[in-house]
Amino acid sequence: MKRIYMDHAAATPVRKEVVEAMFPYFADEFGNPSSVHGMGSEIKLVMEEQREKVAKLIGAKPKEIIFTSSGAEANNLAIKGSALANKKKGKHIIISAIEHHSVLNSARFLERMDFEVTFLPVDEYGLVDPERLSRAIRPGTTVVSIMHANNEIGTIEPISELSAICRERRIVFHTDAVATVGSISVDVNELNVDLLSLSGVSLGAPKGIGALYFRENLRLVPLIHSGIQESGRRGGTENIPAIVGLGKASELAIKELRDKGKYLKELRDLLVAGINERIEHIKYTGHPKKRLPGHASFCIEAIEGEALLFMLNQQGIYTSTGSACASKALKTSPVLVAIGIPADLAQGSIVFTLNSDNQVEEIEYALEKLPVAVEKLRSISPIWRRKTAA
Amino acid sequence: MKRIYMDHAAATPVRKEVVEAMFPYFADEFGNPSSVHGMGSEIKLVMEEQREKVAKLIGAKPKEIIFTSSGAEANNLAIKGSALANKKKGKHIIISAIEHHSVLNSARFLERMDFEVTFLPVDEYGLVDPERLSRAIRPGTTVVSIMHANNEIGTIEPISELSAICRERRIVFHTDAVATVGSISVDVNELNVDLLSLSGVSLGAPKGIGALYFRENLRLVPLIHSGIQESGRRGGTENIPAIVGLGKASELAIKELRDKGKYLKELRDLLVAGINERIEHIKYTGHPKKRLPGHASFCIEAIEGEALLFMLNQQGIYTSTGSACASKALKTSPVLVAIGIPADLAQGSIVFTLNSDNQVEEIEYALEKLPVAVEKLRSISPIWRRKTAA
Repeated sequence: MKRIYMDHAAATPVRKEVVEAMFPYFADEFGNPSSVHGMGSEIKLVMEEQREKVAKLIGAKPKEIIFTSSGAEANNLAIKGSALANKKKGKHIIISAIEHHSVLNSARFLERMDFEVTFLPVDEYGLVDPERLSRAIRPGTTVVSIMHANNEIGTIEPISELSAICRERRIVFHTDAVATVGSISVDVNELNVDLLSLSGVSLGAPKGIGALYFRENLRLVPLIHSGIQESGRRGGTENIPAIVGLGKASELAIKELRDKGKYLKELRDLLVAGINERIEHIKYTGHPKKRLPGHASFCIEAIEGEALLFMLNQQGIYTSTGSACASKALKTSPVLVAIGIPADLAQGSIVFTLNSDNQVEEIEYALEKLPVAVEKLRSISPIWRRKTAA
Repeated sequence: MKRIYMDHAAATPVRKEVVEAMFPYFADEFGNPSSVHGMGSEIKLVMEEQREKVAKLIGAKPKEIIFTSSGAEANNLAIKGSALANKKKGKHIIISAIEHHSVLNSARFLERMDFEVTFLPVDEYGLVDPERLSRAIRPGTTVVSIMHANNEIGTIEPISELSAICRERRIVFHTDAVATVGSISVDVNELNVDLLSLSGVSLGAPKGIGALYFRENLRLVPLIHSGIQESGRRGGTENIPAIVGLGKASELAIKELRDKGKYLKELRDLLVAGINERIEHIKYTGHPKKRLPGHASFCIEAIEGEALLFMLNQQGIYTSTGSACASKALKTSPVLVAIGIPADLAQGSIVFTLNSDNQVEEIEYALEKLPVAVEKLRSISPIWRRKTAA
């Protein structure tokens, strides 16, 4: 059976060119960049080339890039590392109510270390209001973290407006750009941020690699303490094959980003229009315009998202209901709660995240199967029966 | 030119079988184990199979294994995670003076978080004395971390004696087994430890993967906070290809360990005897018997280790002077200082770490080139001139 994969926010196949680029660094060029001998210095050169490529993708300087093992690690390092580095200045941090678990739970950890955390509410589209951020700041606020885009509802936040408020008051501003880097154009200077997390997975690089951008000279307590790797900010032997993969993926993203965005937007709009046409009583979640190009998310009345996923799965269609790491953990998505979706409607969440390998035919296939599945589920739903009887 | 690689403690080529095992998980079986759909559950099964293999290698239960991005991360998680989880009981931890930077600097981090750290001295062979550990324990001691073997001098510590002391007093005992797992037989129950770190690199798995064994139900504050991956103890999308690599490498290690140890010991003894025969005024560092099978380390009088490394490098021989991540950071190795080597002698440190891919002919070639290099360096050394004139 055909595999129609529309869950790229959870995982993405590693690109062929990326696997090929990585390959020599497993068994042949396997040196440790910290080694004094020639194999060390050769591999260090290779590593620094990759750092340049990643930096270029986001408009940073190479020395402002720290390689990590994931976007989640980058988020942990950014939040905890900058909060701890500034704890003498104050112990108050601000994050939005719809941050990824890695930001949210880093903040919760800091709470247990006697920090105070303000969780900024969002509007019905998931947008953070700059005014509200201004009001939440107080003496002792040291770090603000607002995600660039939310992977569950696709909404893109007004980062440069939010960061300007923090810049003025010398507050460290971090953005989790895991959902945006590789999907839309991202420039650390335009966004005016101090810290930015990205993940290889979003770029067609393998799992197990991410990066943290940190503005030059920014103070950061390491998360993984060890030797002097990554300018002393991240210990442990550098994961060269994965770093090469991230470098290659960044190089490709620079070339392809514009066309990719246009293509994904077309596919997505086709999907959204088709679903709106074919299925009644649904809510398109997230912002209608300010959203990721390949992202479509809905709450479908009177059905259970997991049941729908399962039925689509049987047709070879792979989608998500909420963020991947949350989907097994929680019944009601905190993101959907934050944008004011009633709990029963939130149960019917379905998220499509497209990528360049998706085709128009796949969208058409999904548009054919989805309404049938919804109808089947509604036909056995007591809630639906009550609704339609009314 | 031939490449004679004798620096396996710094980096090891990934085994062919391991690369092959990993390959399908980059572009084909690329699912996220947290996904609700079929690709998620399929990949989760694969992941759990690997966990079984790693567990089997060290005599643990699968659910006692946490995958990490490196041995360094495992050490950080073990030390910080258990110290923070037990901070209401006390804030005193004990480590040896010759721990890896990832343990040492995790302890230093805890000092800045108001913990107290005792650094246990070692004897001239690098051994920790159980009596001394007993005396260092006091009310409020919650965690002890002593490495299984030191990668700079090869000495294997009497872990089961040390851990028994802690077990009796309900103190968490961690051992950094990065240098031993894959090199000698390691069993968490024989060693009687609560936490044990291992690294893929030592097993012929790729960089970017390690694991932490934690005794069932042991409390541990996560280092990387995010979703519920790894039983909530390590967040971030699991690095499936690398996990498959670690699983395959563990499976191979179980089969080969006995023969490998015997072979490496033979090679090492040949190298050590040859060096002792050909070069005067040298000191074999570490314990002569209780040491890693493929490990030989010397301090050579009146030469500079880095200069020697460079000359051997020119002959295609790759060795190390101290631990890889330390070698660019520090002039005098803290490990050599701890075993009482005078600073000038410590400058002439050279470390050979062999693996199964090394051959007798390579040892012979090294034995031919090494004395020539030493003689050349000594011929231009004022220290040597003074010494021989005396």
